[in-house]
Amino acid sequence: MKKYHYGICLLISIAINIIFSMNPYVGGREKNQEISCRPSLSWSEKAAIEAEAVAAISCSGHGRAFVDGSISYGRTVCECYGCYGGADCSELSSECVADADSGDPVYLEPFWMQHAADTAVVISGWHRMSYNYADDTMMSIELENCIRKLHSIVGNAITEGRYMVFGVGSSQLLSAAVYALSSEISSSPSKVFASKPFYPIYKDQTVFFNSNNFQFKGDTNSWQLNNSTNSTDVIEFVTSPNNPDGELKKPVLRGKTIYDHAYFWPEFTPIPGPSDHDLMIFTLSKLTGHAGTRFGWAIIKNKDVYEKVLKYIYLADMGISKDTQLRVLKLLKVAIEEDGKPFFEFAYNQMRERWERLTFVFSMSKRFSIQKRHPLHCNFFHETRLPSPAYAWVKCEREEDDDCKAVLEAAKIRSSSGSTFGAEDRYTRLSLIKSQDDFELLLQRLTQLVFLENTSIETL
Amino acid sequence: MKKYHYGICLLISIAINIIFSMNPYVGGREKNQEISCRPSLSWSEKAAIEAEAVAAISCSGHGRAFVDGSISYGRTVCECYGCYGGADCSELSSECVADADSGDPVYLEPFWMQHAADTAVVISGWHRMSYNYADDTMMSIELENCIRKLHSIVGNAITEGRYMVFGVGSSQLLSAAVYALSSEISSSPSKVFASKPFYPIYKDQTVFFNSNNFQFKGDTNSWQLNNSTNSTDVIEFVTSPNNPDGELKKPVLRGKTIYDHAYFWPEFTPIPGPSDHDLMIFTLSKLTGHAGTRFGWAIIKNKDVYEKVLKYIYLADMGISKDTQLRVLKLLKVAIEEDGKPFFEFAYNQMRERWERLTFVFSMSKRFSIQKRHPLHCNFFHETRLPSPAYAWVKCEREEDDDCKAVLEAAKIRSSSGSTFGAEDRYTRLSLIKSQDDFELLLQRLTQLVFLENTSIETL
Repeated sequence: MKKYHYGICLLISIAINIIFSMNPYVGGREKNQEISCRPSLSWSEKAAIEAEAVAAISCSGHGRAFVDGSISYGRTVCECYGCYGGADCSELSSECVADADSGDPVYLEPFWMQHAADTAVVISGWHRMSYNYADDTMMSIELENCIRKLHSIVGNAITEGRYMVFGVGSSQLLSAAVYALSSEISSSPSKVFASKPFYPIYKDQTVFFNSNNFQFKGDTNSWQLNNSTNSTDVIEFVTSPNNPDGELKKPVLRGKTIYDHAYFWPEFTPIPGPSDHDLMIFTLSKLTGHAGTRFGWAIIKNKDVYEKVLKYIYLADMGISKDTQLRVLKLLKVAIEEDGKPFFEFAYNQMRERWERLTFVFSMSKRFSIQKRHPLHCNFFHETRLPSPAYAWVKCEREEDDDCKAVLEAAKIRSSSGSTFGAEDRYTRLSLIKSQDDFELLLQRLTQLVFLENTSIETL
Repeated sequence: MKKYHYGICLLISIAINIIFSMNPYVGGREKNQEISCRPSLSWSEKAAIEAEAVAAISCSGHGRAFVDGSISYGRTVCECYGCYGGADCSELSSECVADADSGDPVYLEPFWMQHAADTAVVISGWHRMSYNYADDTMMSIELENCIRKLHSIVGNAITEGRYMVFGVGSSQLLSAAVYALSSEISSSPSKVFASKPFYPIYKDQTVFFNSNNFQFKGDTNSWQLNNSTNSTDVIEFVTSPNNPDGELKKPVLRGKTIYDHAYFWPEFTPIPGPSDHDLMIFTLSKLTGHAGTRFGWAIIKNKDVYEKVLKYIYLADMGISKDTQLRVLKLLKVAIEEDGKPFFEFAYNQMRERWERLTFVFSMSKRFSIQKRHPLHCNFFHETRLPSPAYAWVKCEREEDDDCKAVLEAAKIRSSSGSTFGAEDRYTRLSLIKSQDDFELLLQRLTQLVFLENTSIETL
């Protein structure tokens, strides 16, 4: 019956095309005016038409329009990448600073544009209004299963027999983990450490929340030197791969550990084997690039710790947006298609190419160096590869360049200073995961800087 | 050109209908097989078809299916309301407990189903991947403007010249507000109070986060009695209307205040005028019923306090899901249509009817009483009305019934005990904002209980 119906539909469609092709005023040029025959849509059609119309707005390949963007003269405004401007993002501001400061992971946008049909989400006005899912939890079991499958495919974490808690990005889970592991005796708060250079939010959160349960004590090495025995009331952040320098890290102290695995994915590092620690934290932001979605998860061995993390999430905000969970499910389903090969290959190739071009520029410089990368066998790609970290950790080699961020800033490159990460300001971090336009401009500015260095030497 | 195109389309459509009507095997019965002529969709169509197919699953009017629901035998499973069960939610379990414990605001689901086309959201796979919006903030300015318009229409809060911060539900903002207002001197933590009966999360959060900056001190009245002067380091939660009893409250102490206005909307209370306090917190959950979306906002007078709340949100989780913000924008745009009349009238009529029926049942009882409601002029509806709070605050009047929750539990009614709110257990809270099925069962059980009371008296 269906076949017959579509057969007629096809014939009619051909007839329409013949009629239209005979009439010069009804051409096929304007995509929005094509005729189609398909199962009818009702309530979702208006939003779908609107979303497609906005997505079709040309921003010259240097920006994009969003359905919740500002409207100007009845038209959704283009939001331009980095140094592009103008109504259609066609104007490059030549004097503009190349921003490599933030870890905004927009580099995967093209992948999601290529997989538009499978990753679109339609949310009805009455979608999951309740605080809970059908099983009375605040977490989607479908999504939890999908995440477990993802880890099993990638081989980067053991999830069998482990508990899982969702959070608003990994940020929230970092804080929840410190609470869950810390002392409940106010007279002896737990001591929280990280190894320099470290992601600054560990310190910022711990200091800001100013709990009786814990205190941030800084770098792990300082503690080692001053104390022969390690307390059980020690909590150590182990960031592997590390932000900012991409190193695969191990704990330095013998206390409780929080493994921040935000970057432990095949696009950034070879996966030597599955991580199997007591408390591991992952985030969607750096896996698929959807930082704006704010979604992360913790994998936890101990039931008591799990319950404390869950309690934190409940008291902090009564769980994670159901709309977010639905969208994450859609995205991850595509990421794990064909055992993750198309997604991770796309992502890895992007990062590899960026690193090759970056390494080439830095290889011509004596003034600046970047971190050494060591090849490692990747269990996911089944070969030995170089890591391709999210950030370049730049060192200014000249003695007088003790503020490396300022040196780059003078060359119109914005970076994150070493002291932000508890390190020397002789170092600075460059983000490599922003949009292609941002990366191209960064590379152009770096090339100019290195060219100037070499020209100056010749001139001397 | 467009007109001509659709003219042809109409003709073809008529032709198709004639062909189909002549063929008995291609009837118009199956909606999914209708032919339509309209602008063509591409990447959004698959998700739209999927969403409509799931929405069309019949759950007998006693449940609904969701796109991220479990799949059984290739079909999305119905999720049933309260005491309904079975594959299509058609089976009522007669022995099941009527659950009036949680504040799950599903009673507005029918409104959003009726406004399906205007509230559907289509999110592309590459929607707002960045941490920030175009203006480098983490909050949608379109949404902020829409919320300001909403308050101006409803007349429940002054927003001109005030700052706004979004949070993951009001829950997160309650905690952020305490941090922002509290002392930064650890030796003299701020004292946090609320007036009995109060929403338990105020205490639970403050105790759990166990900050050096503040301490929960319990009921405002106990403090008044013991202290003649009020400290500036006092923070008072003013919940107006109050959860659980619906009272419009005023501060008792002379410290800093956090106005929890979760229920300050025309469906629950007459709006006597716009609230104009230093720090006011609102939530989508109780306004539109979208608790699962986790979205709230704070309106703040003081710039310094605003910046501290913003810093809290940034450090806690780097802002609110962009997907959530898009959905909230869509929902609120519909809520403010025709100056909010259709939405608030629907919501108010639901609550009014529930209160009328509830009051009738309780009017026949001497064993149980509920809170008195006082008429007040509503500036939004331009007339004097009775409030219709989200909860009934039930008192067990018999001396021996000192555990009112247990008395109701014995009659198969689940409620929230008075002690949960810092009050006596002679009181218990009944939620009136759940689904219609839940409310009907609650009313039926209450009627039986009151009937039994009257029968017993007659029998004596």
